Amino acid sequence: MLDYAALAALAAVVREGSFERAAQALHVTPSAVSQRVRLLEERVGCALVIRGQPCRATEVGQHLCRHLAQVRLLEHDLQDVLPVAAPTAERARLPVAVNADSLASWFAPAAAQYAASAPVLLELTVDDQDHTAERLRSGAVLAAVTALAKPAAGCNSQALGTLRYLAVASPGFMARHFAEGVQARSLALAPSLLFDRKDQLQARWVRRQCRKAVPLPCHLLPSPQAFVEAGLAGMGWGMQPLPLVQPLLAAGRLVELVPGTPMDVPLYWQHARAASALLDGLGRAVLAAARAALG
Amino acid sequence: MLDYAALAALAAVVREGSFERAAQALHVTPSAVSQRVRLLEERVGCALVIRGQPCRATEVGQHLCRHLAQVRLLEHDLQDVLPVAAPTAERARLPVAVNADSLASWFAPAAAQYAASAPVLLELTVDDQDHTAERLRSGAVLAAVTALAKPAAGCNSQALGTLRYLAVASPGFMARHFAEGVQARSLALAPSLLFDRKDQLQARWVRRQCRKAVPLPCHLLPSPQAFVEAGLAGMGWGMQPLPLVQPLLAAGRLVELVPGTPMDVPLYWQHARAASALLDGLGRAVLAAARAALG
Repeated sequence: MLDYAALAALAAVVREGSFERAAQALHVTPSAVSQRVRLLEERVGCALVIRGQPCRATEVGQHLCRHLAQVRLLEHDLQDVLPVAAPTAERARLPVAVNADSLASWFAPAAAQYAASAPVLLELTVDDQDHTAERLRSGAVLAAVTALAKPAAGCNSQALGTLRYLAVASPGFMARHFAEGVQARSLALAPSLLFDRKDQLQARWVRRQCRKAVPLPCHLLPSPQAFVEAGLAGMGWGMQPLPLVQPLLAAGRLVELVPGTPMDVPLYWQHARAASALLDGLGRAVLAAARAALG
Repeated sequence: MLDYAALAALAAVVREGSFERAAQALHVTPSAVSQRVRLLEERVGCALVIRGQPCRATEVGQHLCRHLAQVRLLEHDLQDVLPVAAPTAERARLPVAVNADSLASWFAPAAAQYAASAPVLLELTVDDQDHTAERLRSGAVLAAVTALAKPAAGCNSQALGTLRYLAVASPGFMARHFAEGVQARSLALAPSLLFDRKDQLQARWVRRQCRKAVPLPCHLLPSPQAFVEAGLAGMGWGMQPLPLVQPLLAAGRLVELVPGTPMDVPLYWQHARAASALLDGLGRAVLAAARAALG
């Protein structure tokens, strides 16, 4: 068996970012934490923590952290079965990765509703829908909303529906930049909006429309609300998620660059296969919300 | 003089994350990019890029990138003075770090309004208000909205006002967890909301109220809107920024844990000192918006 006190020390260091704060959280001395992690590293034969500001898990360390999170979830399920379970008032931690547009629209109310009544602590991390699956694979999270259909090793995948994106801009922006039409030439000069460096949606839409890649001047706006605001203010055009801009399109404050050219991004709920009633409960809440909100 | 073609190659690698994509952006071969960066590294005597997925700048590399951004801004100002300026239709890049709550409330409309009419490309990065100043110091950005009053080296600092935070929860959550009052004992059991691991606001409020540190069970919700949703759904209590929750407080959907115990976070606009009309213009727009929105 693995040494679970040592695993808990490892997970606390990674979660809190330092050996000192991990020691506070576990009510032990920093040297006890550091000794447990060191012994575990000797046992498994490789480094588990990259010492730094903050401390981070190595790849093997991430797998061990995910393993611990799964074991804790399973222990939690046991409490309903055993009359005298482990004396823990501790809530189970559910690390989940979500793409920002889902979190800003349909995901947050569903997850909040579930976590408000279930004995869990949700630990959400935000990443691009093309990259949340990596976090699942690396063991950093137990579940993810992702654009990848193919399940990661040890995971199940369920279709959530598609999040529709439209290439939109303000009417003023359209008049300034696309009066002569939306082609490669005008797109190469008109500022676009990019959520972050990983965001490929604008480039994909342009490649589909123009049948070639066009280098796009871009603003970087890593916030779904700022992204919408920027569109409204005529700062640039961008692929906006339909649930966030539907009322603005209806009011004519945003318009499609080329009417009827949506891009649909299919989303999947991937989760670690080890059955756990708590993770299953979150999954059901997420699936129900997605089916109501997505296409 | 520094080799500016090499600096541009360095900045493109850091911006795009790989030598291949930098080469595409600069319309040269990847080996040309890699040679320019290597020669620059030999010249300055240290590594400038950490080769990885994605490639990142070393500390010296970040300083060189910021220097290049400043030089580009200054060149941009020249275009108004010289009848025949450098033949560039390129917009100036303004890398700026902003805390998430500012970006989600007062900052986005102001910056979008400015960038919609000025010949710039805004590159926003989001970080905790206690950490945006580090990005300025490290040279990753030219300006930042930060909680640090003391200007970073080579920077000016202007007060923006204070962003007010209130410890709030839903009425149902209050009844479930704080029926016997808000003390260390009840706070140690009631789930709190944390924006991310860097978020110290909840811990600071508890330390002030209880006159000691209390370990808080916490959900992690790295999105201002998800944070508000989680509060509404009764998932936990948290320090919410007043501009985002004022209507919800007025409607009674959220209530203060202890009435009249706000925490005010003073915010500052810090920017690189090298005068540039474009950076000054953004600064004026940000200051005006902050004065209208903050206390």
